[in-house]
Amino acid sequence: MNPLTSFDARTGASHGEALTPSTAADIDTAVQVAHATAPAWGSSDGAQRAALLDGLAAALETDREALVALADRETALGTGRLNGELDRTAFQLRRFADIARRGVPFEVLDDPAVPGAPPVGHPAMVLQRVPLGPVAMFAASNFPFAFSVLGGDTASALAAGCPVVVKAHPGHPHLSQRVFGLVQRVLAEQGLPAGLVGLVQGAGVEVGVSLIRHPLIAAGAFTGSTRGGAALQAEANARPRPIPFYGELGSINPVLALPAALAAKGGELATTLAASIAMGCGQFCTNPGLIVLVDGADSERFVAALTEALKAQQPHAMLTAGMRQAFASGVDRWRMLGASTLVQQPDNGSAPGPQLLQVPAPRFLAEPALQDEVFGPASLIVRAVSTAEVLQVLAAVAGSLTVTVWGADTDTADNRALVRGAMAIAGRVLFAGVPTGVAVIAAQHHGGPWPASTAPMTTSVGDAALDRFLRPVCLQDAPAWLVARGGQPC
Amino acid sequence: MNPLTSFDARTGASHGEALTPSTAADIDTAVQVAHATAPAWGSSDGAQRAALLDGLAAALETDREALVALADRETALGTGRLNGELDRTAFQLRRFADIARRGVPFEVLDDPAVPGAPPVGHPAMVLQRVPLGPVAMFAASNFPFAFSVLGGDTASALAAGCPVVVKAHPGHPHLSQRVFGLVQRVLAEQGLPAGLVGLVQGAGVEVGVSLIRHPLIAAGAFTGSTRGGAALQAEANARPRPIPFYGELGSINPVLALPAALAAKGGELATTLAASIAMGCGQFCTNPGLIVLVDGADSERFVAALTEALKAQQPHAMLTAGMRQAFASGVDRWRMLGASTLVQQPDNGSAPGPQLLQVPAPRFLAEPALQDEVFGPASLIVRAVSTAEVLQVLAAVAGSLTVTVWGADTDTADNRALVRGAMAIAGRVLFAGVPTGVAVIAAQHHGGPWPASTAPMTTSVGDAALDRFLRPVCLQDAPAWLVARGGQPC
Repeated sequence: MNPLTSFDARTGASHGEALTPSTAADIDTAVQVAHATAPAWGSSDGAQRAALLDGLAAALETDREALVALADRETALGTGRLNGELDRTAFQLRRFADIARRGVPFEVLDDPAVPGAPPVGHPAMVLQRVPLGPVAMFAASNFPFAFSVLGGDTASALAAGCPVVVKAHPGHPHLSQRVFGLVQRVLAEQGLPAGLVGLVQGAGVEVGVSLIRHPLIAAGAFTGSTRGGAALQAEANARPRPIPFYGELGSINPVLALPAALAAKGGELATTLAASIAMGCGQFCTNPGLIVLVDGADSERFVAALTEALKAQQPHAMLTAGMRQAFASGVDRWRMLGASTLVQQPDNGSAPGPQLLQVPAPRFLAEPALQDEVFGPASLIVRAVSTAEVLQVLAAVAGSLTVTVWGADTDTADNRALVRGAMAIAGRVLFAGVPTGVAVIAAQHHGGPWPASTAPMTTSVGDAALDRFLRPVCLQDAPAWLVARGGQPC
Repeated sequence: MNPLTSFDARTGASHGEALTPSTAADIDTAVQVAHATAPAWGSSDGAQRAALLDGLAAALETDREALVALADRETALGTGRLNGELDRTAFQLRRFADIARRGVPFEVLDDPAVPGAPPVGHPAMVLQRVPLGPVAMFAASNFPFAFSVLGGDTASALAAGCPVVVKAHPGHPHLSQRVFGLVQRVLAEQGLPAGLVGLVQGAGVEVGVSLIRHPLIAAGAFTGSTRGGAALQAEANARPRPIPFYGELGSINPVLALPAALAAKGGELATTLAASIAMGCGQFCTNPGLIVLVDGADSERFVAALTEALKAQQPHAMLTAGMRQAFASGVDRWRMLGASTLVQQPDNGSAPGPQLLQVPAPRFLAEPALQDEVFGPASLIVRAVSTAEVLQVLAAVAGSLTVTVWGADTDTADNRALVRGAMAIAGRVLFAGVPTGVAVIAAQHHGGPWPASTAPMTTSVGDAALDRFLRPVCLQDAPAWLVARGGQPC
């Protein structure tokens, strides 16, 4: 196997020592040792899980300076953003610590016996949840902290009582290795087995495929491209015994800017939206990739303002050379499919320029490939002539992490229909602001119909992320000793 | 297409008029009209949903005599059992009526805005749920009421606000048509659109495949064989836009009879278990297909008592000729794979005789095909020599709707380990009684790791069956009018 090289995301130059990709034997060992930790960690109490998660959060903060510097070199995301992302990652770890401490993974639903014949009568039954076992976690390119080694998937799986084997993203191999070292230090300090969190690395598809195929892996969690996620999901389903696979894949995040909003504050919204399109060089799963407008003077003015505002944006370098090439190809494809150009800022050498294109709604509806995500600082405006046509556009998108609706502040039949159409395809519907920025709270839902998620009833961000790794089990006529232990046998 | 013939399950003779299988155009129409009802039904309130479900329950009871007679002819399950099943089906419909009336599908999780910068500060967010849309429901052979046209899947989907298109099971086509007529009558009486519940029929795989492939179908729910369910799940995943598929497939339901229980009341347990093996001619997804014993004098006595008790059982005819043939082949396969015979009651002309075989645990562990479900009145005894070997047997089974553990009443290290091993593979663990009989309550979990279910976090029986058809959506900064409407746009 070729060595795994880390590149400076700004210069493209390799830096640091090349890492050795994980072999099949390495992967097997990582899963075996993770599996060996599953019984004890699955039986740990909330205090113990919380102590680990709190310890990991503190360790991230302690090593902040070195971690952010390394992350910035490998991703070019900038130290401001990366410090904020580290804060969020520590916040997530502490939030799941709190969830574990409050006993959420151990909650039970008690259904005492009812005498008599069925269907009314029934034995004593208690519903609780058990950890699934070792989780294969596939890190994302674009959040080197928050969706990587110690990201939300790892935090929620550990809180649920599951060991984790992380497949590092090859875009930040040194950072992944360094964070993994930090995890190992905390595990050792707390007297926990090293195998509770494993790390495997590799630039090709082989390492990830071997990991999801391993018979002792109990679930997969993935954040990344539609193509990669779909391939891994197919692997999870093709196992002799299929396992749950939680994939957060692509999303184009339509922003529906209605005349009511544009008349009131179109200029301000154009500035806000331009910043959201270019932020992080557009490398967010919630990046607004589609803007839907209803023809009229307000929309014309908004397009002009957005065009100017976007030209003024200067994105930083993309995460990898491959992503930059995919971005250029994606915008070219839009053009070939009939989209006309509004903003075509040139590549500045290290970073792509922002791009804005537009198509009439009938063209968008006739060409499914225009609905594919283009990952980067670009957005496609779709011009509709009526509410009915806007609804057709939303229905064609069919699945998205978010839909943003600006200007639906009054209760009209049109607004009801539009909100309904937005809710039908999205995991989150926003009525103000921009979709980038995902709060880590109880009411968050970061998911949605395919391709936003392979499991649209689940979320990968927020408190309910925990539920993905706990399987319900009903205990019927449980003996007294087991009831006394809250249904936890050991 | 060949006409769809109904057979008398006892005599094998065809009876009644042959039905015309649904054509591709019929299926398309059924889905189109179901889809057309989705917006209005998805916006209906709890009272309206409850009225429909209550009306359907009452209509089943009104037509009880004719329905049970027809069901008995097509299934041979007996009028006693079928009257009980009709009771359960009406009970389920009323239970979901109550769930809708109490507003469960409309519950929201409110996360008021917190001022300040992220990750602590966040906008106002409300989490609620939206109905998925038209559900393709694949009826089971073995529960012509409770898992068929008006079964739990239909009841829970309607309560969730989803239209349903039922693919009838070809084992009871006339009953399905008759129950569908009853549904249409109730829909008309309540002024609801006929398309809210559709029915398609067909004996081959084509009808089911066309249904799950239809672009307007939003989810699938299936109860049946591992092979059929896996094929439909693959179809659901192979769609241009994959959809959730809830399949309840095969299950061998291990019964772990520990010496402590056998010493105390082995004779009584043998009688109970024999009845459970033969009940309904073994045609239950919770039929105890595997009995795990630890060698010793109590187990020897239990095997002798079970052998005698099972010989005395006289099962009724099986549901279809095809199932009877599959049963005979399955038992033959056990024998070819090295299982020795304890009970081999002959076929009595219309019904198979009960079968009991046994193998040593090492043989069971070495031969994965011995772990396949044999649907019918047969059980395989696995003889283990130690707790460790019992745990290996459970781990080899890997997925089952239920595990029954008799004799774990005291808190010992062995019992803890065994309960843990049982919980690791099952959706329900019983400590008394037999797995047949599934209470329809809040704490029920009828599911489990593959092949028990394609979606092990969900249940097809009990209150949480509703959750399969409601997708979470987060509303961020929702306008006042939408908040005032409880987040329901129309």
